[in-house]
Amino acid sequence: MDFATIAGIISGIALIFLAIVQGGAVDGFINVQGVLIVIGGTFASTLVSSPLKDIIQHMKTVKVAFKNTKNEPEEIIAILVGFAEKARREGLLALEAEAEQVDDEFLKKGVQLVVDGTDPELVRSILDIELTFLEERHKEGQGLFEHLGAMAPAFGMIGTLIGLINMLQVLDNPDAIGPGMAVALTTTFYGSLMANLIFIPIAKKLKTRSSAEILTKEVMIEGILSIQAGENPRIVEEKMKAFLAPKSRDQVESIRRGGVNIGG
Amino acid sequence: MDFATIAGIISGIALIFLAIVQGGAVDGFINVQGVLIVIGGTFASTLVSSPLKDIIQHMKTVKVAFKNTKNEPEEIIAILVGFAEKARREGLLALEAEAEQVDDEFLKKGVQLVVDGTDPELVRSILDIELTFLEERHKEGQGLFEHLGAMAPAFGMIGTLIGLINMLQVLDNPDAIGPGMAVALTTTFYGSLMANLIFIPIAKKLKTRSSAEILTKEVMIEGILSIQAGENPRIVEEKMKAFLAPKSRDQVESIRRGGVNIGG
Amino acid sequence: MDFATIAGIISGIALIFLAIVQGGAVDGFINVQGVLIVIGGTFASTLVSSPLKDIIQHMKTVKVAFKNTKNEPEEIIAILVGFAEKARREGLLALEAEAEQVDDEFLKKGVQLVVDGTDPELVRSILDIELTFLEERHKEGQGLFEHLGAMAPAFGMIGTLIGLINMLQVLDNPDAIGPGMAVALTTTFYGSLMANLIFIPIAKKLKTRSSAEILTKEVMIEGILSIQAGENPRIVEEKMKAFLAPKSRDQVESIRRGGVNIGG
Amino acid sequence: MDFATIAGIISGIALIFLAIVQGGAVDGFINVQGVLIVIGGTFASTLVSSPLKDIIQHMKTVKVAFKNTKNEPEEIIAILVGFAEKARREGLLALEAEAEQVDDEFLKKGVQLVVDGTDPELVRSILDIELTFLEERHKEGQGLFEHLGAMAPAFGMIGTLIGLINMLQVLDNPDAIGPGMAVALTTTFYGSLMANLIFIPIAKKLKTRSSAEILTKEVMIEGILSIQAGENPRIVEEKMKAFLAPKSRDQVESIRRGGVNIGG
Amino acid sequence: MDFATIAGIISGIALIFLAIVQGGAVDGFINVQGVLIVIGGTFASTLVSSPLKDIIQHMKTVKVAFKNTKNEPEEIIAILVGFAEKARREGLLALEAEAEQVDDEFLKKGVQLVVDGTDPELVRSILDIELTFLEERHKEGQGLFEHLGAMAPAFGMIGTLIGLINMLQVLDNPDAIGPGMAVALTTTFYGSLMANLIFIPIAKKLKTRSSAEILTKEVMIEGILSIQAGENPRIVEEKMKAFLAPKSRDQVESIRRGGVNIGG
Repeated sequence: MDFATIAGIISGIALIFLAIVQGGAVDGFINVQGVLIVIGGTFASTLVSSPLKDIIQHMKTVKVAFKNTKNEPEEIIAILVGFAEKARREGLLALEAEAEQVDDEFLKKGVQLVVDGTDPELVRSILDIELTFLEERHKEGQGLFEHLGAMAPAFGMIGTLIGLINMLQVLDNPDAIGPGMAVALTTTFYGSLMANLIFIPIAKKLKTRSSAEILTKEVMIEGILSIQAGENPRIVEEKMKAFLAPKSRDQVESIRRGGVNIGG
Repeated sequence: MDFATIAGIISGIALIFLAIVQGGAVDGFINVQGVLIVIGGTFASTLVSSPLKDIIQHMKTVKVAFKNTKNEPEEIIAILVGFAEKARREGLLALEAEAEQVDDEFLKKGVQLVVDGTDPELVRSILDIELTFLEERHKEGQGLFEHLGAMAPAFGMIGTLIGLINMLQVLDNPDAIGPGMAVALTTTFYGSLMANLIFIPIAKKLKTRSSAEILTKEVMIEGILSIQAGENPRIVEEKMKAFLAPKSRDQVESIRRGGVNIGG
Repeated sequence: MDFATIAGIISGIALIFLAIVQGGAVDGFINVQGVLIVIGGTFASTLVSSPLKDIIQHMKTVKVAFKNTKNEPEEIIAILVGFAEKARREGLLALEAEAEQVDDEFLKKGVQLVVDGTDPELVRSILDIELTFLEERHKEGQGLFEHLGAMAPAFGMIGTLIGLINMLQVLDNPDAIGPGMAVALTTTFYGSLMANLIFIPIAKKLKTRSSAEILTKEVMIEGILSIQAGENPRIVEEKMKAFLAPKSRDQVESIRRGGVNIGG
Repeated sequence: MDFATIAGIISGIALIFLAIVQGGAVDGFINVQGVLIVIGGTFASTLVSSPLKDIIQHMKTVKVAFKNTKNEPEEIIAILVGFAEKARREGLLALEAEAEQVDDEFLKKGVQLVVDGTDPELVRSILDIELTFLEERHKEGQGLFEHLGAMAPAFGMIGTLIGLINMLQVLDNPDAIGPGMAVALTTTFYGSLMANLIFIPIAKKLKTRSSAEILTKEVMIEGILSIQAGENPRIVEEKMKAFLAPKSRDQVESIRRGGVNIGG
Repeated sequence: MDFATIAGIISGIALIFLAIVQGGAVDGFINVQGVLIVIGGTFASTLVSSPLKDIIQHMKTVKVAFKNTKNEPEEIIAILVGFAEKARREGLLALEAEAEQVDDEFLKKGVQLVVDGTDPELVRSILDIELTFLEERHKEGQGLFEHLGAMAPAFGMIGTLIGLINMLQVLDNPDAIGPGMAVALTTTFYGSLMANLIFIPIAKKLKTRSSAEILTKEVMIEGILSIQAGENPRIVEEKMKAFLAPKSRDQVESIRRGGVNIGG
């Protein structure tokens, strides 16, 4: 599980909660109807913008995105360099057995295409299309959270307007102004907190995660095509290491030495 | 009919209505003149930005967009793989009869071009131009709703300014301040609600719908050209499945088996 | 004349005016100095951003843009298909006489280049450059109105700040607060109304108009080059119809039949 | 000197000043400390964002940008057509003497490269790189003014917050509220005025200027390469006129006739 | 160390501090709990958006970015022209010794690839991939500061809402309104100041720094490939000088003359 996200949300809520408790008047922050307006309105607006089926599917994508990915680029490069060496020594067909043991569906498919003797142009075309649409699906997931992040404060403000209009109509008792306005402001508070602590940062995290996954897949395509072209394993390694930050490059070497069982 | 959009709008309005009823002072939220300012102003501004003819046409596009599309990409792929097999066995001319039975105008046109022996370059060029302008027309429809979504809160605020200026001029009676400000705020409330519950989410939905339709059309172009090139039906299938989410890929198989009557 | 724009502006102003009259206190909305601050400030800011010569030229562009264009894409396609047939029967030189009768300067120039036997690459290059810079000039016109649309509310707010600072300094008489604040708010009202009813929608209209004109010109380039390449008139027609919405395609046929005098 | 910018700033300030004087309470708008907060804060923030050396250099770029450019595209085209004719009659080497008399460094360099017999690919590559980085440097200058335009209102608001916090702490004397709030609002007024009358429009002007200069340079590259390719001077003229607005095209002819001394 | 950034932050804080001290009521600006809400909330939100490991790594990138870079483009060009001359006289292999002495890892790698006789296409491909991902990593660092710059004011406003709700609930004592609101506003003040004086300008500086580093690397790629292609050292110099502002070009000459020990 991705610990940081949960730690961030919990610590943020705890912090805000402590600040409220210290202020003394915790009751004033509880407004059940206000919670309904903000959450209900945000959800209704999201339902207008995407079919329920898609919302559920995006939520699943998100869940997957928050799992820790096992295949870091460093590992993938180690595997691919191993494949390159094997292919050099024993031919492309020898990769069939290796491909079976690979976890990643994308890499497995790519190697399978190479083993099947598919034309290199077609291999790149198939894998590129797959990558483009993976990116597209990821963007839709981010778009959902960006929409939530824009709608929560909007419905927070709508809730505050409802509260203010209610309060202002019965302005005969001046003592009621303060508490009435306090209640009205709670929905803006809820909406802002949800957007800035949960929705907007999750949208940002999905974007980073998506970039990382796409980087890994681009490394795979480059590697698979180099192997198919019969390039020298050292060149394959050099080319693929260019995708990494300088400090990650040495890890490839150590993974390869330690991880003989993965790549060959 | 696309149920989610209507369900979202109705549930959102119901939720807000309940919140108002519970506040007790329903009358304060009814401001007929305010409704006129927000809706009238938003419409007038839209009329300045696009000729009436275009507004009506975009509204029709929207209606079409909310119908449930029959041709999902999975189905289209099943049909195209069927075509690829038939073309392999009986030649491209055999597709003429098949094309007659296809609902989708775009696919029918593409297959017809292939049957007519049009040059592949020209087939791609004609279908690409058609797709580009379909996208353009969809963007104009989205643009209309984005404009509505920006103008509704703006005219809501203009209505509130009118209400405030009216109220502030006759500030001799302090008892009138509250209700006067309440009335002034209703237009901001109307504008925000329309924008965030209706216009902005519909613009977003049109965008998603448009992407999906364009994906389907891209699948068609790729498939039509593969068939014209005489590619192996298995490769055609593989190539086109790359456009789908992994979980949708198995559906192609089941559609093909169940739907012999569609593709041949 | 483009009726919708004027109808939109007039109906929007009438609507707001009625709302003010019904509020009773029309005098409070008249603030001559405020009008000067908003219009003068917006104009001064625009003068800083573009030389007066350019502002005047853009205003002329706008005037042209609001005239109803005579050459719809459907008509242009009918003309070009007529040209394609003539060129097939009588050779490219036969188009010289036809080109003379064409209103549109861009089309006339393109056909003239073809008649002169210019290299196809060069024809495309010259027409593409011309189109790129037409788009550039259109964008500058839009940019002017977008700037006006951003500056009007900004100077509206500056006017309100001036009014508030003036009023707050002499807060000894509580009866003056209300009217003083009312006057201060009028400039925000003016700025918002100008931006949202006039400047922003006109910027949007210019964008739509520009897209439409560029589409027509792209149709022309495609058609001219197809004619020069000696393509079959039926193919030329098919290719160019791909630029149109499905419902506009049948109009080409009827124009061609009715309009023999245009294209032949 | 570029008169419009200075006229715009002076007329804008005069207008605002008149509005303040008419309000009677000029003193309330003078807040020396507030000016320091807005200008000092904006400058400090800019210093964080760019090294002082760059800020000074960008300011110089701006000064240059506000000078009236001598080489309008029309003139450059006239010069280049003259070069094309000379090169046709007397060969490319004859351009060496002409190039000496050209003011523009970019054009001089391009012609020099051609005279030196540099490979056309390399000529285009060198001039394109130069143009790209010219654009880059211009964008940095715009970026500086956009940053100033965003920071001035931000520090205006920070100044207002400081004023409000100061005032609200000592709320025992109700008579002090008004003037205190008036003083607090002045910084927002300063920040808005600086941003909307000076920084934002200057950023916009730099953008327009940069586009115009880049257009002129693109005309030069196109012309230089056409001359090197030995194209017909009439074609060179036609090609380059495509970069101009229709109404500017006739000027090329009159410049060429009047300006024999420039181009040959 | 990059002096300007620190000078900007310190002078900005000093300026604001002086303004507060002059206002007299320094105590009112100290709100420890408010500082916790703004900094804690901003940090919690950032933790949700990126794993802690990445945040730490980006902070390191930032530290590196603020060090003064030693390799200015002018120097790099001088070194590369020296290499070009050496390669012309003594062959590409002679560059091996030179490459050893180069500080910059990217340049060293590029030259090493050339010395190894790698195919030019592959050299460009490896260096381009490396550059793309360098840019990507830089963008993530900027993205972190942009997120901080957006979240600080958001949590400032959330803190103000908490303060207002607290205060409004106990509105029985009118004397408490002012100080309560003052305390509530401090968090908005903190958030705005952090965003506009620190986070937003640092994000901007990182962007400028990144562009400069990428420019230097592009110069290197162009130079390395020109050397590999055996181009004339004078052409290499001309080509690479096109990357510089005109006034920086003369420096190359003086560096080359003074810096014989660097390039050869």
